Amino acid sequence: AYSTKEERPVGRYPVPNKKDMPYDIVELMEEVEKKTGFLPNIFKAMSHRPAEFRAFFAYYNAIMNKDTGQLSKADKELIIVATSVVNRCPYCVIAHGALHRIYSKQPALADQVTVNWKLADLSDRELAMLEFALAICRADNITEEHFQKLERHGFGREDAWDIAMISAFFAMSNRIAHFIDLRPNREFYTMGRMPHGEKED
Amino acid sequence: AYSTKEERPVGRYPVPNKKDMPYDIVELMEEVEKKTGFLPNIFKAMSHRPAEFRAFFAYYNAIMNKDTGQLSKADKELIIVATSVVNRCPYCVIAHGALHRIYSKQPALADQVTVNWKLADLSDRELAMLEFALAICRADNITEEHFQKLERHGFGREDAWDIAMISAFFAMSNRIAHFIDLRPNREFYTMGRMPHGEKED
Amino acid sequence: AYSTKEERPVGRYPVPNKKDMPYDIVELMEEVEKKTGFLPNIFKAMSHRPAEFRAFFAYYNAIMNKDTGQLSKADKELIIVATSVVNRCPYCVIAHGALHRIYSKQPALADQVTVNWKLADLSDRELAMLEFALAICRADNITEEHFQKLERHGFGREDAWDIAMISAFFAMSNRIAHFIDLRPNREFYTMGRMPHGEKED
Amino acid sequence: AYSTKEERPVGRYPVPNKKDMPYDIVELMEEVEKKTGFLPNIFKAMSHRPAEFRAFFAYYNAIMNKDTGQLSKADKELIIVATSVVNRCPYCVIAHGALHRIYSKQPALADQVTVNWKLADLSDRELAMLEFALAICRADNITEEHFQKLERHGFGREDAWDIAMISAFFAMSNRIAHFIDLRPNREFYTMGRMPHGEKED
Amino acid sequence: AYSTKEERPVGRYPVPNKKDMPYDIVELMEEVEKKTGFLPNIFKAMSHRPAEFRAFFAYYNAIMNKDTGQLSKADKELIIVATSVVNRCPYCVIAHGALHRIYSKQPALADQVTVNWKLADLSDRELAMLEFALAICRADNITEEHFQKLERHGFGREDAWDIAMISAFFAMSNRIAHFIDLRPNREFYTMGRMPHGEKED
Amino acid sequence: AYSTKEERPVGRYPVPNKKDMPYDIVELMEEVEKKTGFLPNIFKAMSHRPAEFRAFFAYYNAIMNKDTGQLSKADKELIIVATSVVNRCPYCVIAHGALHRIYSKQPALADQVTVNWKLADLSDRELAMLEFALAICRADNITEEHFQKLERHGFGREDAWDIAMISAFFAMSNRIAHFIDLRPNREFYTMGRMPHGEKED
Repeated sequence: AYSTKEERPVGRYPVPNKKDMPYDIVELMEEVEKKTGFLPNIFKAMSHRPAEFRAFFAYYNAIMNKDTGQLSKADKELIIVATSVVNRCPYCVIAHGALHRIYSKQPALADQVTVNWKLADLSDRELAMLEFALAICRADNITEEHFQKLERHGFGREDAWDIAMISAFFAMSNRIAHFIDLRPNREFYTMGRMPHGEKED
Repeated sequence: AYSTKEERPVGRYPVPNKKDMPYDIVELMEEVEKKTGFLPNIFKAMSHRPAEFRAFFAYYNAIMNKDTGQLSKADKELIIVATSVVNRCPYCVIAHGALHRIYSKQPALADQVTVNWKLADLSDRELAMLEFALAICRADNITEEHFQKLERHGFGREDAWDIAMISAFFAMSNRIAHFIDLRPNREFYTMGRMPHGEKED
Repeated sequence: AYSTKEERPVGRYPVPNKKDMPYDIVELMEEVEKKTGFLPNIFKAMSHRPAEFRAFFAYYNAIMNKDTGQLSKADKELIIVATSVVNRCPYCVIAHGALHRIYSKQPALADQVTVNWKLADLSDRELAMLEFALAICRADNITEEHFQKLERHGFGREDAWDIAMISAFFAMSNRIAHFIDLRPNREFYTMGRMPHGEKED
Repeated sequence: AYSTKEERPVGRYPVPNKKDMPYDIVELMEEVEKKTGFLPNIFKAMSHRPAEFRAFFAYYNAIMNKDTGQLSKADKELIIVATSVVNRCPYCVIAHGALHRIYSKQPALADQVTVNWKLADLSDRELAMLEFALAICRADNITEEHFQKLERHGFGREDAWDIAMISAFFAMSNRIAHFIDLRPNREFYTMGRMPHGEKED
Repeated sequence: AYSTKEERPVGRYPVPNKKDMPYDIVELMEEVEKKTGFLPNIFKAMSHRPAEFRAFFAYYNAIMNKDTGQLSKADKELIIVATSVVNRCPYCVIAHGALHRIYSKQPALADQVTVNWKLADLSDRELAMLEFALAICRADNITEEHFQKLERHGFGREDAWDIAMISAFFAMSNRIAHFIDLRPNREFYTMGRMPHGEKED
Repeated sequence: AYSTKEERPVGRYPVPNKKDMPYDIVELMEEVEKKTGFLPNIFKAMSHRPAEFRAFFAYYNAIMNKDTGQLSKADKELIIVATSVVNRCPYCVIAHGALHRIYSKQPALADQVTVNWKLADLSDRELAMLEFALAICRADNITEEHFQKLERHGFGREDAWDIAMISAFFAMSNRIAHFIDLRPNREFYTMGRMPHGEKED
């Protein structure tokens, strides 16, 4: 157990020195660090295996940064929080809870979903979206009824695909994070806590 | 489902007007409000039944505000957070997570315990304390082995009693909160988020 | 493991001598012993902590001995049996099963509920009452649907509160009993076993 | 739901009239009724299918009435109670609890095992026997370790077989009883309740 | 752990020499071996206890080889596969999967049911049959609703009895097989794998 | 439900015509079909989303076709079978069971692992490998103890990474397959069924 005073390592595998990393990986890291203000630990941890680093973030990019469909950035982060809670993944719940606060401007919702998503202050549309994401998360048999419930809240077949792929990708990510013992950067805990309109920091 | 913009009601039972409440209850509420800066919703909700209000807070007081034993105020709040997470109780996790941040000056620990207590940055003593509290929480058969594990971390028989009674009391409280549909005051979400030494406002 | 021949201790904490107990506790014990014919072990066990003894029985009294509402004494005992079975609490199942036999004059029902409440010879009203009590017992999310089911069997909102509070209080009591390793007095096993009209001795 | 006043039917399948039953079945029934004082409902229910009646009781006889090995009649009934509790089978728990009281002269033990076998007043030998029976009951993978634990309490390989076969047979019987909705005869509830030496009537 | 090259023993109990077995048991074995082409290991394993051998196969015969009712031989094997999967019984899943392939002429269905019965290529009638069999398998409370669902697919009360008894009998058999550590004969793995019309050898 | 006579569709999303697919995807498909003798349905199903097709197979390639480390091709397939069984994924269990038979020349092992991996004829090394893979599969907290167990069977930290990533990737794949309702090609059911040395056709 670590005292909360000292800084935890990123995970249980060593992080290579930047000078030993392939150039494309350094480049991606610097771009992310510039945009976010710090480098999320998942980038450091995955750099232990460059080929898998590239595969992981290319896949992430293909499902998280596509522009089509009806899922907002906040919707996607909400799906990640809800499914990562089921797997009790510290990195993903804390990091994507922070991203949800940033994108949604709702400072309390991710915390509510972390405790009990069915009692969170969600719209019926969001509830339907999470219900489907969690059926995927639990590896339930998926039936036509699942699709019909989604449709009642305006989600078409392609939206269903998008929800499912995010939930499935984080089924993988949560397990990778458990394996690596990946821990969230300190910055994530406080990001976006102040309500919309109020200045943060 | 409530929009996050409007204020949620305290719970599903009506809260009486202050002027219709017995004097001792008003007095206790005012004392708490003065000390905390706002009146936690549990006080409002329980005032629906004055006799039970008195019994609930008298019991709470008997186990939470006794001075003897080795449990700090932060320890007690940590027990409450960990056991309330098992029961997915929004009010107790959010409110007592806030109190833990205040008492412990550790802004991230309650969030970590909420996601996955075994991976939180806890001391071995805290891990042993929560392990015992959660055995009580699950209504496990309690054996001598449980007491021996506690003793290895400096908790005597009377400390075990204190841990057990807090966990047992919140087994009740979590269920009352679910019944009432009790929701945390907004203030709890942000209380104590800034690390020790930094000014919070 | 104890032979069934010798008398078990009341629990794993020492019971103080009567002469060392506060007067109000002795007085309450004597009153109960007079009424019941023997002193139920919960009174002995809780006297280890006088302040908690007082809080526990005051709370018990506030919810079990109120006269209003539609729950009969037998109803209340049935709720306690059903919820204590879920937590596998020897003291509460045996003691409150006995009290149910006494109040209901039904010698077999508590035994049936102990094995499988859904197959017990219960009225639809009793089934609805237990269904709600067990939702509380499991710390389920409680929804309007739960209240509507109760209403179809004549239980109003205040009755729902009464059922919930008994179930929640015994969520606490069962865990305290497990912690103390509290065991039923021998008398409870045979109390009220003879059917109504037949003499018991 | 049945009122407890009227007599419940034996189960959900019709019981043939004695005059329509094959002679060997009538003969067996009369023998049992003479010995027990009443005809346990399982005999009535199974007579719906004479070939299966014969197979069921022949099998029961082969494992319950063999004289060799170290299991006493009370041991066998204890195994049946413990495994039938897991399957929440009203008939088997109530009927074999009664038989255990009769054979063991211990009026409280079956009730204790019904609530929580690990907290019952059992000898270490009985605990080991039930632990093994319940591993069979849950269809666990059985390993050499299971046999070694039994051996430490004096149970050889042939005793293990006897325990396993009783547990396995009642895995079947409990499910048959659930299917038939078989209910215990009223007599079972009170049989053997008075402690050894006291007269029962 | 055994290498797959060497032949595993039949189970963990010794199999008597044929010359030491009672004549009726030898006779039954020879009849089965002649019919099947090899002697399934369950016959060898049960011969350790001749009285139980006779009881087991007499019972099996009474429920599996009756001619009345609507269950085909393939239906019965499908029930056995589905319920044995729940108990993770290697012998019963592999052996009865083979028998199902033989009787149904469907080489893939048993494998599908082994992985996920709800996603297998089953008719609605077969789904209803397995749903009921698995309710028995889990020792669920059986209600009138269960019977009505069966009736909607053409299964009467006597068919329900047949399904239930097969499921209940294999609740026993699966547990006996786990106890004995019974393993399938090699022949079962490949029996009936070739689709109908193609020659198998 | 589909009759087993007619051919099932690949899944619930439409498969584009080859002429509408991007060239690189067609090229990869033709290469696979040439090598395997038929085109596994996962390739058809994923072509619905070309960008995700590329990401999925690039990732698959990065973890399945790397040459370093101690995992044989058969080991990797065994991990996939064992983890896909937990998620009850028809496509992955059947397809990768077939691949395991091909690579391992062991015609029965995948079937054994499908029913009950702990009772399969596995070496201790294989048991340790699957135990770790299943801890990842269940999203367990991974501790140093897990790594030490692996080391006792010759698996280093980089092998642990390989096992974990395969298990995590199939946590995703199983869920994608459930979402798509992906079904195995008929060819997979019989591939590699004949033991080593015997001709298969």
